[in-house]
Amino acid sequence: MRSTPSPEAAPAMTPAASLVFTTLLSNGPITRAETARRTRLSPAAITKAVRPLMELGYLVEGVDEGARPAVGRPASLVWVDAGRALFIGIKVTGDEIIAVLADLCCRVRIPRHVRLKGRDPEKVLPAITALVQELLTEADGFGVPVRGLGIAISGDVDRADGVVRYSPFLEWRDVPLAEIVGTATGLPVTVDNDVRALTVAEHWFGAGVGLSNFALVTVGAGIGCGLVVHGRVVSGAHGVAGEIGHLSLDPLGPLCHCGNRGCVEAIAADPAILRGMREATGKNVTAAAEALDLAHSGDPGVRQVYARAGEAIGKAIGSLVNLLGPERVIISGEGLAAYDLFAEGIRDAFAASAFGTASQCDVMTRPLPFEQWARGAAATAIQSFIGSDTYEE
Amino acid sequence: MRSTPSPEAAPAMTPAASLVFTTLLSNGPITRAETARRTRLSPAAITKAVRPLMELGYLVEGVDEGARPAVGRPASLVWVDAGRALFIGIKVTGDEIIAVLADLCCRVRIPRHVRLKGRDPEKVLPAITALVQELLTEADGFGVPVRGLGIAISGDVDRADGVVRYSPFLEWRDVPLAEIVGTATGLPVTVDNDVRALTVAEHWFGAGVGLSNFALVTVGAGIGCGLVVHGRVVSGAHGVAGEIGHLSLDPLGPLCHCGNRGCVEAIAADPAILRGMREATGKNVTAAAEALDLAHSGDPGVRQVYARAGEAIGKAIGSLVNLLGPERVIISGEGLAAYDLFAEGIRDAFAASAFGTASQCDVMTRPLPFEQWARGAAATAIQSFIGSDTYEE
Repeated sequence: MRSTPSPEAAPAMTPAASLVFTTLLSNGPITRAETARRTRLSPAAITKAVRPLMELGYLVEGVDEGARPAVGRPASLVWVDAGRALFIGIKVTGDEIIAVLADLCCRVRIPRHVRLKGRDPEKVLPAITALVQELLTEADGFGVPVRGLGIAISGDVDRADGVVRYSPFLEWRDVPLAEIVGTATGLPVTVDNDVRALTVAEHWFGAGVGLSNFALVTVGAGIGCGLVVHGRVVSGAHGVAGEIGHLSLDPLGPLCHCGNRGCVEAIAADPAILRGMREATGKNVTAAAEALDLAHSGDPGVRQVYARAGEAIGKAIGSLVNLLGPERVIISGEGLAAYDLFAEGIRDAFAASAFGTASQCDVMTRPLPFEQWARGAAATAIQSFIGSDTYEE
Repeated sequence: MRSTPSPEAAPAMTPAASLVFTTLLSNGPITRAETARRTRLSPAAITKAVRPLMELGYLVEGVDEGARPAVGRPASLVWVDAGRALFIGIKVTGDEIIAVLADLCCRVRIPRHVRLKGRDPEKVLPAITALVQELLTEADGFGVPVRGLGIAISGDVDRADGVVRYSPFLEWRDVPLAEIVGTATGLPVTVDNDVRALTVAEHWFGAGVGLSNFALVTVGAGIGCGLVVHGRVVSGAHGVAGEIGHLSLDPLGPLCHCGNRGCVEAIAADPAILRGMREATGKNVTAAAEALDLAHSGDPGVRQVYARAGEAIGKAIGSLVNLLGPERVIISGEGLAAYDLFAEGIRDAFAASAFGTASQCDVMTRPLPFEQWARGAAATAIQSFIGSDTYEE
C-alpha cells in the first residue's frame, strides 16, 4: 500500500489484533470467549488485542439486551463500531466506474455509478478522483473521517507497490495507480486485483464466511478466480494467482490473447462467446445481452456455443478442485446471466473431471453485482487500515 | 490419526507449542527471541510453549560454545533433542517397502528395504508389520521409545480416518490401514498420501525450508503434487488435493485410467512413456530403465516421447503457478532419471504458459530417493505426535 499522510493515524495493529478485528467483522457481536475460540488465541491475548481498539472506539463491548438469560449475568459481547470510520471502494469496468462509501463494517452507505468515456488512464484516473471527491463531500455528513480508498482492477496488480502491472482488459501497463490517486485525493490507497478484492468481501461477509478453503470463480468479460486457502486469500509470490482463465484445455482450441491456444478464457469469456455467436449465426453480435437473447430464442447453434463455454468452465473448476480441494466453489460474475445455458455443461464436465471424493465439493452460484465488487475494494482498504494485509506467516 | 495406547503419553500440545516445535525442528538451535520473531508469538507465549516441552526433555536450552561473543553473555539457544524419541516411516512402492527408523529431528538412523511379492493388502500388510517389528527390535538399542509410525501410500488417502480410500497404483480400495497396522504393532499410526508426506519433509528439512508457498511435483509411476500454501500443507477439504496428474490438456489425448482423455498422467507418467516407446520402436519395452537406455541411444522417435511428456509436465507446472503463484516448484520423483530428456519440453512449455510475473517462479529439480519418501512418512508421524496435524485455522 502506498499512502499519503492521513489526519488521524491508523491504530497500531499486531497480527493478533488484526485477527481479532476480522473475526469480529465477520462474526460479531460475540463474547470474548467465542472470539478466543475462533481465533485460537488465549483470553489474555484477546484482552491485549481488544483494549487499544476499544480505547480508540473501533470496538465496543456491551450486553445483548435481547438475549438476557433468566438466571445469572447476561453475556457481554464485543463488536466493531461500524460508524467509527468510513472507506471508499472503487471497481473499474470497461464502461463505468462503480464506487461505494462504506462504513467500518463494510456496509454500503452510498453507491455511485459513472459512465466512462474511454479506458486509458488519462480518461479513467481523473474520473476516479472526481468521484472520490464527490463521496468525500458526502462523507462530511457522517461526521467521521474517510480512512482509506480501495481500487479494484482486473489483471496483474501489485498490491504492495500499488501498481497495475498489466490489465489486458483496460490495456494498462505499469500504472502507479496508488501514488497518483493518493496524491490527488490525500487518502491512503490500496490497489488490488478485482477478483481478489471480491474474494475478501465474500470471505468476510458472503458465501465464504467461516470457510478456511474456498474458491470464487467469476465469469464474464474474463474468467477469473479468487482463492482462500488456510483461511487467507492467495495473492501469489510474484503477484499472480487465480489465473484459472489460462488453464489450457485444448492445443487445437481458439487462440487466446495470452498467446496460447485453448485457454478457458478463449472459449468461455464474453469475447469468445460473441465470436462463436457470429460464426454460428452470421449476425454481427457485439454485446453479451444481445447474444443472450439470441440463445434464449432457441437457436441450437447458438446454444452450443454456451454449452461449450460451460464445459470449459466445468473442466477448469474440476482441475481447481483436484488441485486444492476447497470446501466450496462460488460461481459469480456478470456472465451468470447466462447460467441456465452454461449449467449443464459445467455440471457434467465438473463431474467427469473431479477426482474421487473431490466431487463432493459444494459448487454454487451467487449473483454479485458490480456494487459488491466495489464493496470488495472497500474491504481491501479496511484490510490495509487494520493491517491484515501485512500479516504473513 | 487412529491410535492405540502408547506406553508414555504424548505431550499435550497447544497450537502455539506445535508451531514453536516445528520452527525449532527446521531452524534450531536458535534463540528464544528468534523463535518469537519466526513464529510471531510474544516472548511470554514462547516461554509458555517451551516450558512443558523442556520438562519432558523434548526441547533443550543451552549456550552455543562455538559462538561465544568477545564481550557480554553468550546467547542461550533452544533446540529439539533429536535422541529423545524415535519414529518409523514407511513408503510402499509397487515393488518394495522402504522403511526408516528416524529420530525426533527426523534424521534417518536405520534404513531398510524389503521386496514385495505382490501388491494386494494381504501381501503388503504382513510385510509392513514384520518390518516394523524388526525396526522396533533395533530401536531397543537406542534406549528411547518409538513414539509413532507413519505410512505413505500413493492415491486418495484419508489421514483423519487412517484409511486408504483408493490407490490406483496398488489397486487398493477402502483399506483401514491405520487400524490394522496399529493393532498389529501397538504403535500410533498415521497414514497419508505419499507426496503429501514427502512435502512435509521438504518443508521442514528440504528445499521448502523458510518458504510459505511452494509446490513439489513428482514424476514417475504417476504425476503427483504436494502444495504448501500460507505455510501449511494443503490436504483438501475432502482428502483430495494436488492432483496435478489429472489436469486435462487435450480432449483428443490418450485415455487416462481416471476415465478422461489427455490428462498429464496419461501423457507423462511411466506407463504412458512405455506405451509411446512401444509404438515408436515396435519393441516390447516394459521397464522405465530400459526406456531410458533406448532414449539415450538417440532414437529420435523415442526422444520425442519424452519431449511430449516434458511439454505436458511444463504446461501443468505453468497452470499450477498461474493458479497459486508459489515461490518455488521442486520437481522430483524417480522420473528425474530422465530429466535431461524432459528438461527442454518442461522449460519451453512452462515459459509459454506462465502468465506475466508468474514466470519468475523458481522451478528447480531435486533428487529425492524413496528413503526420503519414507522419511516423509516418519515426518507425518512426528506431526501427529506434536499435534501439528490438527492445527486448523
